[in-house]
Amino acid sequence: MTEGALDYARDHGPRFVEDLKELLRIPSISTLPEHAGDMVRAAGWLRDRFESLGIASRLIEGSGPPLVYGEWLEAPGAPTVLVYGHYDIQPVDPIDLWSTPPFEPTERAGNLYARGASDDKGQTFTFLCAAESLLKAKGSLPINVRFLLEGQEECGGKVVKEYVQAHGDNLQADFVQVADSGMYAPGIPTIETGLRGVVYTEVRAWGPAHDLHSGLYGGVAPNPLIGLAQVLADIKDRDGHVSIPGFYADVVMPPDSVLTSWRALPFDDAAFLRDEIGASQLVGETEFTPLERIWARPTLDVHGITGGFTGSGAKTVIPAEASAKISMRIVPNQRAERIFELFRGRVLELAPPGIQLDVALVHGDDPVLVPDDSVYVQTAREALHDVFGRPAVMGRSGGSIPIVGVFKEVLKLDTVLMGWGLPDDNLHAPNEKISLENFHRGIEATVRFWEKLGQAG
Amino acid sequence: MTEGALDYARDHGPRFVEDLKELLRIPSISTLPEHAGDMVRAAGWLRDRFESLGIASRLIEGSGPPLVYGEWLEAPGAPTVLVYGHYDIQPVDPIDLWSTPPFEPTERAGNLYARGASDDKGQTFTFLCAAESLLKAKGSLPINVRFLLEGQEECGGKVVKEYVQAHGDNLQADFVQVADSGMYAPGIPTIETGLRGVVYTEVRAWGPAHDLHSGLYGGVAPNPLIGLAQVLADIKDRDGHVSIPGFYADVVMPPDSVLTSWRALPFDDAAFLRDEIGASQLVGETEFTPLERIWARPTLDVHGITGGFTGSGAKTVIPAEASAKISMRIVPNQRAERIFELFRGRVLELAPPGIQLDVALVHGDDPVLVPDDSVYVQTAREALHDVFGRPAVMGRSGGSIPIVGVFKEVLKLDTVLMGWGLPDDNLHAPNEKISLENFHRGIEATVRFWEKLGQAG
Repeated sequence: MTEGALDYARDHGPRFVEDLKELLRIPSISTLPEHAGDMVRAAGWLRDRFESLGIASRLIEGSGPPLVYGEWLEAPGAPTVLVYGHYDIQPVDPIDLWSTPPFEPTERAGNLYARGASDDKGQTFTFLCAAESLLKAKGSLPINVRFLLEGQEECGGKVVKEYVQAHGDNLQADFVQVADSGMYAPGIPTIETGLRGVVYTEVRAWGPAHDLHSGLYGGVAPNPLIGLAQVLADIKDRDGHVSIPGFYADVVMPPDSVLTSWRALPFDDAAFLRDEIGASQLVGETEFTPLERIWARPTLDVHGITGGFTGSGAKTVIPAEASAKISMRIVPNQRAERIFELFRGRVLELAPPGIQLDVALVHGDDPVLVPDDSVYVQTAREALHDVFGRPAVMGRSGGSIPIVGVFKEVLKLDTVLMGWGLPDDNLHAPNEKISLENFHRGIEATVRFWEKLGQAG
Repeated sequence: MTEGALDYARDHGPRFVEDLKELLRIPSISTLPEHAGDMVRAAGWLRDRFESLGIASRLIEGSGPPLVYGEWLEAPGAPTVLVYGHYDIQPVDPIDLWSTPPFEPTERAGNLYARGASDDKGQTFTFLCAAESLLKAKGSLPINVRFLLEGQEECGGKVVKEYVQAHGDNLQADFVQVADSGMYAPGIPTIETGLRGVVYTEVRAWGPAHDLHSGLYGGVAPNPLIGLAQVLADIKDRDGHVSIPGFYADVVMPPDSVLTSWRALPFDDAAFLRDEIGASQLVGETEFTPLERIWARPTLDVHGITGGFTGSGAKTVIPAEASAKISMRIVPNQRAERIFELFRGRVLELAPPGIQLDVALVHGDDPVLVPDDSVYVQTAREALHDVFGRPAVMGRSGGSIPIVGVFKEVLKLDTVLMGWGLPDDNLHAPNEKISLENFHRGIEATVRFWEKLGQAG
């Protein structure tokens, strides 16, 4: 039974890639207002695709890019999966570091390069290809499927959260499936059992009422860029510890059995440093392993600082204001709201002389844990074993997929997180790509997963 | 005899202002390569002006905007002054804070608003107006005058320095006169007897080989923005002290007699804070008065930081690199070269784990002291007393006019620094202006100064 759909998927694999390229050519960058029209184009493309497969679809409008909803509910008695993905992508700067243009999808050495190839258009599209393979080969799907694709994942996901909270009745299902994560390494399938949360903030600093000449006022005028630097240095030390009182109070490390299994995973510090980071050394809390630091420890990063003069040459200005984008990754049992309050309080307390600070929350999401003993996770493991010929790693991700927490909280649903990215996919960076082998195997894995669930039912 | 030239200056004052507006309309921003053509236009405008007055003039080409040279040497036996000024200006950003466009000179409430109105086109132009008044009223100048106007003062002044060093013979004179400074307060004429030097640097920081996703790598990847912040916080503390070992070793404070005279000047901390700084408090070394901090103490400022994502919204990137523009103001007997070496050494020493740093010198200039007992300074004081009806303040400037040090070192000439700016002229900031009364009095003061020197000779 499965073979028919798998054969279809294999036969049509090259065309699936060409179809994906169409979607990748749409620069649907949700965080930049000038791309609002592209968000609508990408959503429309997906809706049309559902319709062409015979999956009823509609756009759900909200305060931002629309949600694309699709449903096929003609398998009475079988489980219902709520499939989630996102069609929005990250900005592309620095654009000059791309080897080929981010919106001209290009195949090289078994990879497809384009912004969104992995995060998350390419992975989201595997669901549509799996559904097409099953529908075309068999005339039906083995389980009921609801698709909910959003266009705001990279900038807070307000619309989808509001929709789930207000219209959860329309999303009744037995579990959620998401492909917006990665494999532990090439050939090693992975199910994520936990995700860090995030608290994304913007800190603004004011000094003089207007820009001043540093010759005429240097020595008496407060400098907001130096002020921000002093605050930053005081909230994260050189050993990677976040110096905010109470920050670590609610951190609960995984049980020893989990930590032991992580230490059994193949991990080569030197290769990781060389191949993925490319810096002179790994940093952070040396009392934890690198995997623990990424999967189970909170941290803090600065993403950008504005203010003053940044053109070529020299301008001797003391700027009137400056700002920094700062985020924290948080872990169980930290809560985004509490961490933001601790952060805000500490930053304000650290204001240097003459500097006034304002701390704004851009978005915040709690961390998530997924129980690994459900029938859905166990069936997914079987499907992965069939496709990849080896057991899946039960790991975690340091990244955040905020909606997973919302599904749990509002719909009481756990999520099967199996994804097709690789560590070197350059997410959020120049030269993003997806492994085409992983793309095809991802389609196969979902075909097998849904078939197994349908047979069990 | 003087009255004829002063009458001419007064009668033609309004036209002088209109002529200055022509020069101010040329956006000769030396630090931005796209304005190279405007540099040539501004230089040509000045050369034509000299020629129209019967002052022989030529452009001196070098690796950058040309120097404008003019000379009138037909007063045998009289002293020769080397007049210096600059026709280049600072960038105009943030452009949206200008009440009227920076290159549409606009009169409001006795002031002329435009980029360069005070620094330094407006002040430089007073020399041309003084020369015109004398030449038209009397047919000759009372002393010999060489004019040397450069177009690179705001970005290091390489061309003029090279020219003075290579062709000092062409610039033989008895003293230098510069109008690129301010008056202590409205109605209070001022001669500067010292200038701080400057060491302008750029520090670049590298972490990962490419931009990384902060979710997937936060906790192990070095962040160059945080690294820069940690370095900055470690080289300047919250009390305004520069924390570089040896930084203050060569600082020599002025003699007590000078400090006492400074303390006798009218200075209202609260009014200074409110009217000029506009911050919540003055900062810096509290063991020194604000005037001492600006006129006689070294300091350090950050002018801009780049790296990462600074658009609207949220991007969770750990940038591969970041950079900061950092300058130090230095005082007698600090030397730019030595201070740069101390700065560079300390910054490199402070590199946080995983961060690689590079420190480049953008430009460096030594501080300058001017003896206040020369016949030129004393005659300038008399001229100022005549025009303003009160004695001149003998002060200092916290700003730098690097060429003054070169004139001293290469040509062995001291400089009479009397200028027509005011503390609220918004130098290097939006809404730069010059007081039209000061502009006219500046022309008169130079007419009287040169007349007095001619009569003495």
